Amino acid sequence: MGYSAEKLSEEKVFKDPVHRYVHVRDRVIWDLIGTREFQRLRRIRQLGTTFLTFHGAEHSRLNHSLGVYEIVRRIIDDFFAGRPEWDGQERLLSLCAALLHDLGHGPFSHSFEKVFDLDHEHFTRQIILGDTEVNRVLSKVDTLFPKMVAEVIAKTYENKLVVSLISSQIDADRMDYLQRDAYFTGVSYGHFDMERILRVMRPREDQVVIKHSGMHAVEDYIMSRYQMYWQVYFHPVTRSAEVILTKILHRAKRLYESGYQFKHEPRHFYSLFAGDVSLEDYLKMDESMMLYYFQMWEEESDPILSDLCDRFVNRKLFKYTEFHPSNDQMNKLMELNSLFKKAGIDPEYYLVVDSSSDLPYDFYRPGEEEERLPIHLLKNNGDIRELSRESEIVDAISGKRRTDHKLYFPEDLLREGPSKRNIKRQIRKLLELE
Amino acid sequence: MGYSAEKLSEEKVFKDPVHRYVHVRDRVIWDLIGTREFQRLRRIRQLGTTFLTFHGAEHSRLNHSLGVYEIVRRIIDDFFAGRPEWDGQERLLSLCAALLHDLGHGPFSHSFEKVFDLDHEHFTRQIILGDTEVNRVLSKVDTLFPKMVAEVIAKTYENKLVVSLISSQIDADRMDYLQRDAYFTGVSYGHFDMERILRVMRPREDQVVIKHSGMHAVEDYIMSRYQMYWQVYFHPVTRSAEVILTKILHRAKRLYESGYQFKHEPRHFYSLFAGDVSLEDYLKMDESMMLYYFQMWEEESDPILSDLCDRFVNRKLFKYTEFHPSNDQMNKLMELNSLFKKAGIDPEYYLVVDSSSDLPYDFYRPGEEEERLPIHLLKNNGDIRELSRESEIVDAISGKRRTDHKLYFPEDLLREGPSKRNIKRQIRKLLELE
Amino acid sequence: MGYSAEKLSEEKVFKDPVHRYVHVRDRVIWDLIGTREFQRLRRIRQLGTTFLTFHGAEHSRLNHSLGVYEIVRRIIDDFFAGRPEWDGQERLLSLCAALLHDLGHGPFSHSFEKVFDLDHEHFTRQIILGDTEVNRVLSKVDTLFPKMVAEVIAKTYENKLVVSLISSQIDADRMDYLQRDAYFTGVSYGHFDMERILRVMRPREDQVVIKHSGMHAVEDYIMSRYQMYWQVYFHPVTRSAEVILTKILHRAKRLYESGYQFKHEPRHFYSLFAGDVSLEDYLKMDESMMLYYFQMWEEESDPILSDLCDRFVNRKLFKYTEFHPSNDQMNKLMELNSLFKKAGIDPEYYLVVDSSSDLPYDFYRPGEEEERLPIHLLKNNGDIRELSRESEIVDAISGKRRTDHKLYFPEDLLREGPSKRNIKRQIRKLLELE
Amino acid sequence: MGYSAEKLSEEKVFKDPVHRYVHVRDRVIWDLIGTREFQRLRRIRQLGTTFLTFHGAEHSRLNHSLGVYEIVRRIIDDFFAGRPEWDGQERLLSLCAALLHDLGHGPFSHSFEKVFDLDHEHFTRQIILGDTEVNRVLSKVDTLFPKMVAEVIAKTYENKLVVSLISSQIDADRMDYLQRDAYFTGVSYGHFDMERILRVMRPREDQVVIKHSGMHAVEDYIMSRYQMYWQVYFHPVTRSAEVILTKILHRAKRLYESGYQFKHEPRHFYSLFAGDVSLEDYLKMDESMMLYYFQMWEEESDPILSDLCDRFVNRKLFKYTEFHPSNDQMNKLMELNSLFKKAGIDPEYYLVVDSSSDLPYDFYRPGEEEERLPIHLLKNNGDIRELSRESEIVDAISGKRRTDHKLYFPEDLLREGPSKRNIKRQIRKLLELE
Repeated sequence: MGYSAEKLSEEKVFKDPVHRYVHVRDRVIWDLIGTREFQRLRRIRQLGTTFLTFHGAEHSRLNHSLGVYEIVRRIIDDFFAGRPEWDGQERLLSLCAALLHDLGHGPFSHSFEKVFDLDHEHFTRQIILGDTEVNRVLSKVDTLFPKMVAEVIAKTYENKLVVSLISSQIDADRMDYLQRDAYFTGVSYGHFDMERILRVMRPREDQVVIKHSGMHAVEDYIMSRYQMYWQVYFHPVTRSAEVILTKILHRAKRLYESGYQFKHEPRHFYSLFAGDVSLEDYLKMDESMMLYYFQMWEEESDPILSDLCDRFVNRKLFKYTEFHPSNDQMNKLMELNSLFKKAGIDPEYYLVVDSSSDLPYDFYRPGEEEERLPIHLLKNNGDIRELSRESEIVDAISGKRRTDHKLYFPEDLLREGPSKRNIKRQIRKLLELE
Repeated sequence: MGYSAEKLSEEKVFKDPVHRYVHVRDRVIWDLIGTREFQRLRRIRQLGTTFLTFHGAEHSRLNHSLGVYEIVRRIIDDFFAGRPEWDGQERLLSLCAALLHDLGHGPFSHSFEKVFDLDHEHFTRQIILGDTEVNRVLSKVDTLFPKMVAEVIAKTYENKLVVSLISSQIDADRMDYLQRDAYFTGVSYGHFDMERILRVMRPREDQVVIKHSGMHAVEDYIMSRYQMYWQVYFHPVTRSAEVILTKILHRAKRLYESGYQFKHEPRHFYSLFAGDVSLEDYLKMDESMMLYYFQMWEEESDPILSDLCDRFVNRKLFKYTEFHPSNDQMNKLMELNSLFKKAGIDPEYYLVVDSSSDLPYDFYRPGEEEERLPIHLLKNNGDIRELSRESEIVDAISGKRRTDHKLYFPEDLLREGPSKRNIKRQIRKLLELE
Repeated sequence: MGYSAEKLSEEKVFKDPVHRYVHVRDRVIWDLIGTREFQRLRRIRQLGTTFLTFHGAEHSRLNHSLGVYEIVRRIIDDFFAGRPEWDGQERLLSLCAALLHDLGHGPFSHSFEKVFDLDHEHFTRQIILGDTEVNRVLSKVDTLFPKMVAEVIAKTYENKLVVSLISSQIDADRMDYLQRDAYFTGVSYGHFDMERILRVMRPREDQVVIKHSGMHAVEDYIMSRYQMYWQVYFHPVTRSAEVILTKILHRAKRLYESGYQFKHEPRHFYSLFAGDVSLEDYLKMDESMMLYYFQMWEEESDPILSDLCDRFVNRKLFKYTEFHPSNDQMNKLMELNSLFKKAGIDPEYYLVVDSSSDLPYDFYRPGEEEERLPIHLLKNNGDIRELSRESEIVDAISGKRRTDHKLYFPEDLLREGPSKRNIKRQIRKLLELE
Repeated sequence: MGYSAEKLSEEKVFKDPVHRYVHVRDRVIWDLIGTREFQRLRRIRQLGTTFLTFHGAEHSRLNHSLGVYEIVRRIIDDFFAGRPEWDGQERLLSLCAALLHDLGHGPFSHSFEKVFDLDHEHFTRQIILGDTEVNRVLSKVDTLFPKMVAEVIAKTYENKLVVSLISSQIDADRMDYLQRDAYFTGVSYGHFDMERILRVMRPREDQVVIKHSGMHAVEDYIMSRYQMYWQVYFHPVTRSAEVILTKILHRAKRLYESGYQFKHEPRHFYSLFAGDVSLEDYLKMDESMMLYYFQMWEEESDPILSDLCDRFVNRKLFKYTEFHPSNDQMNKLMELNSLFKKAGIDPEYYLVVDSSSDLPYDFYRPGEEEERLPIHLLKNNGDIRELSRESEIVDAISGKRRTDHKLYFPEDLLREGPSKRNIKRQIRKLLELE
């Protein structure tokens, strides 16, 4: 019997707070979990800086990856197995893609990717195809297998049914993270009846569809998603930490480019700064590495880098105020900008507009959601209908992008003190702090 | 109105998965949470290496510290306030001691303290009394206040009632960690009716006692504790990681002492190696720092240090077998020791006996539990009786120390390979691996 | 100290699965709970026939009434007490109204009231004002007190703030039943963050308003409500039981009016049939009484009454099909009607169209919701805005009545058998059963 | 394909609060659920009078029966299927026995059986073997099948492995009721990791054994059981209701025997009073019937019957005090007895000693637990060991019967009033009421 069909002599289980247990019987899955590239995900938090807002949100991407794998395993083994529309051959491929879909994430990946112009999907592919332990395990299945796994994750794999298990508007990825993030933050949103959704999922040609009788469970899932975005993912305090983090990385890069002499050399950042990072360098970058440097940089002589690192490490975050990009507000921003300069507080680092935007559900999927397939319902008569045409609730919010702008600034620096008293007072007035 | 009585203009709440919300209304508490020494606890996991066994157990000591504070706050504000036996003056002191009781913990403190002969309680005291942000906040209350807080935590404070809120066999510390660790690991042990226990707690002279009608809830708590110890805290896989961690620190220290030239200099470890660590150095030590070094040391030329770091970082743990310290087994251990040497595997680092021992409850409290006060029940007629005299269940397990010994070794090194084939086979036989 | 201020020597608690504990400290509340009229609510299920669909939904109205009381108690004691807008004098009145608001419900009240043209609110008032144990307890507070309690429940009490605690679109009644019904049915809808909602409730002149920061929690509550209506309250199987129940009562009344000689005399129904029920008679009517009669009537010689009772008692329910009141469908209904007659199955009892209709939220409140006040948000600047003007989600569903029609029939009677074979076949075709 | 193998065209699910869903695919099971004898279990509460203590405990025996079925189904389909020790032929038999094991329970069966000297197991057998819908369904499988089902439930079936699924010290019956009763009462006991226990169950010759690695989960289950007994099942308030109920039935029987002329004739009780109840009569007896009569009897002229019914229906329970059957206390009881008589309060009905006794776990199983098999652990080496020999905790409580005696009396009758003032005062003193 080949490696791809090899089973562990006894099923292994991981205790999981969300799914109770994660079950592993396939040798390939077990071996993948043991690779250093997969274990690295323990050192990258699932929700980036969110733990600074919700102290429970300290869970890692490994945590989530096991969850996505478990959901896909349940869909296939408990519900799809034996159905004529489902090709049993795709089972292992689906499981591997589920387990590995987040493999390329960097530390605090949102800011990290933005500042260094990186793309975690690119690195996921590189890890799967490159000279790695993961690749060696996958290649034992078949020399073409790593490529197939990479294609599923990249959504280019020809069997779109497999792709849709991992990437659609109601895939295993989302179903896991909504529940998991709700569990660890402790919020009461994020609950929906996944059990029921799994039960009404049906494989249909190139996609997973949902039996019409499960529509209300799907509505509930969509609403959970909406609430999680605004209550957790876009929480203004989290975004404050994100703003500071971005500014730290910007500042360090700028200093490096200008030839600044670091007390503590950012050796592991050189190739990132230079825009030419190797896979090996990339894999060393995790959140313990980042936090190590930020702690070191608190002692740098550059006051901006040092201050921002202090803020991030010790949670001395920026405050915020509502900001609507109207003419009035843009003028006020201009004015604040020049007042900050006068007060000796560099507005490039200390006066930041941040925007969050969400599209709760859409059927033609523009923007961020571009590659997510819409949700299709399967009616009793065999017809297939797109969700928002059947559900009034979903129709009501479908395609309605909601955006929120906030202006971030260090309130503590704007308080009293003898110097620049008048300018600070003007700033405080404009920011309505007094 | 003085600082000690100052209230926030609006109550702040932290969302907490265990207690739903943590409520802060006191300015002093708010300021303490904002100190860098308290924020440092975010970078130290509550359960050390347990996350390598239970992937959900990634929660920090900050997480737990807020929980202990919240329990003490509820006891005082919801149940003790207004009772004649309770001195309202002690409220703020109790809250501060609850919040800060774990402040001195180092990274992976179990192994860390053992190898470097440190004591986190010593550092808790130093942080509270030394030149720190925490000290500055506490001193604003009163110049004597830091000392009082330190005394409560050290259990030397004269009002033992206050001490017993934080340190007894049924204190806020334990009630929080049992529930919290159960929540994050996802195990189904660790549940007990804290609500009921809080409701039947009564202040009585020098201790917190429990109304007799709540005895069953207390029994349930004792059993939870017992289960958590054996199912979670002493899990053999966690101990395997702990063994490796300890050996890494030993090896690095040994190398340092022998003048080994590190590729990546352990600058932050020097004072630890030398047994002369300053508070400032100690506070820099957190788990991101440790993980950073371990990653670096994977590239050291010393094969033992490099291998052990690889094992820890990438979770390639030691396997284990039961071990009872009988004559037979001691002889076998001797034999294994010399076979390991012959096989070129240094037994000092690769053949380790580890013991765990628990005393579920005791009324005269020897050993680890030395300073924990027993649990007293308050009968309807006003009499006070020690728990195990009233509860058959507790009496049955009271004072019965249970110990578990395991022998750890790297099963992977004992497998294949042409070299030393015979010796390895002998070892495998002795370890009953084949 | 007067009766109204009298406290129990020790707080009493009821263990409650939804709110953990229900706390009673007021003597008046304790006495009310002990009255026979309140205890009668144990014999009336909260969700009528729903237990025939969701077997867990066997909980009584007493269960729910205690929950509503507990929520109001928490709002007042934990959040309103001490606020200048809240008049502490209204506390006891609010608690009593909360506890007693459902006192007048009859057995399976939906069908019961419809058939006998009764109104449970009328009986609630009668119980409070009439010669009852409840009235005697309330009168001990003050001779005018019963009238005040009745007014709060009738929403005519002058202090509308008190009224809105019990009757608005986000009152204690709804918050309790959504959570409680979700708990007992076991569905995963019905969860929302009540803790948070209570925390952001503010008394404002004549209503309870919600701080704007709690808007998302309110959205979640509105969505829970929507899901509970369609997933639980309007479940087609429950409605099938309701249809049968209604027809039983109709039939029994009809038989009585036509002088039919009952084997088991419906002594307790006489005054109901005659449309002249006394309070005393009404209070005897509970669900054990109804079930007793239905069991007896299974043995009646009238085949319709006997068959319908057999169906209800032994859960042999009607099947259903979608029905849209279009011309086509109305014609089909006509045709079915005459075919049923030909087949000897009386369509008056065996071919029933049932409609359910819900208005998830509305600000101008027509129909059923007539007397429920809209939800108002309190902005930071003190402005008050109606919810649907602030929340896109709520706006999207606001005022959109959704209606569902189903046609119920006894599928078993339309099956096999040599007689009327052709007619039955025609019926089955029209109903698309084959 | 025969009836026994017939599957529903689509799986049916019942939403269950404890197991999430109950799954039915077998036609036989579906048909059994639809019988009138099974549906009758809706009208019998799982926990008898417990709802008068824990208002949530209103769940029926049908509720529990579905749960036991579901657990057995999971054990067989998810864990035993395919194992050589398990005979697939026994599947349907096991499922039917699980579903029907409580079929013969009468209303408030504890008191009911005691007073009328009945045995619900006898009626379970009669329902399965007699002229019933249940029998007709079972007989369709095979003419011998009803007898086999009855034997499994009676524990006389030759394949003891099947018996042990339903009746051992860790069977599906107990695992369901502990969790279900905890859920509906809302207590925090009753939780244990059933998932884990199911996973480590193994069929072994004539019994289900538990893999040694699951020992701690079993310990937790034993402790849950212990707590549920003392916190819920033997709650003194529940026992008070039980005492009154028993006395009502006694009194009614006594009156009947003495030729008392009932205003409301106890027609459905005649055969019970006469000790000669037919199956048909028995099946009519449910809790709505009982409550109907108790309500009617509140109006009887016999003051004892009327008073006791009023107490039960309107929850005016007896108070209680500790009672230890020592010489002293027995003398006091005698004295109270004669004082009650002097006070005109018949001690036979109003002064009652009630005892509860539990044996948390035993390996030789005396008393109530007589027929429950002990729990056996399966060690890695294949050895089988009885639980208490491996677990210190279980050993500690094993075989230790605990008994609790209480003396019940109507405190309200002993209070005020000019008559018998002195005697009542003496009584109150003896009962330590003042």
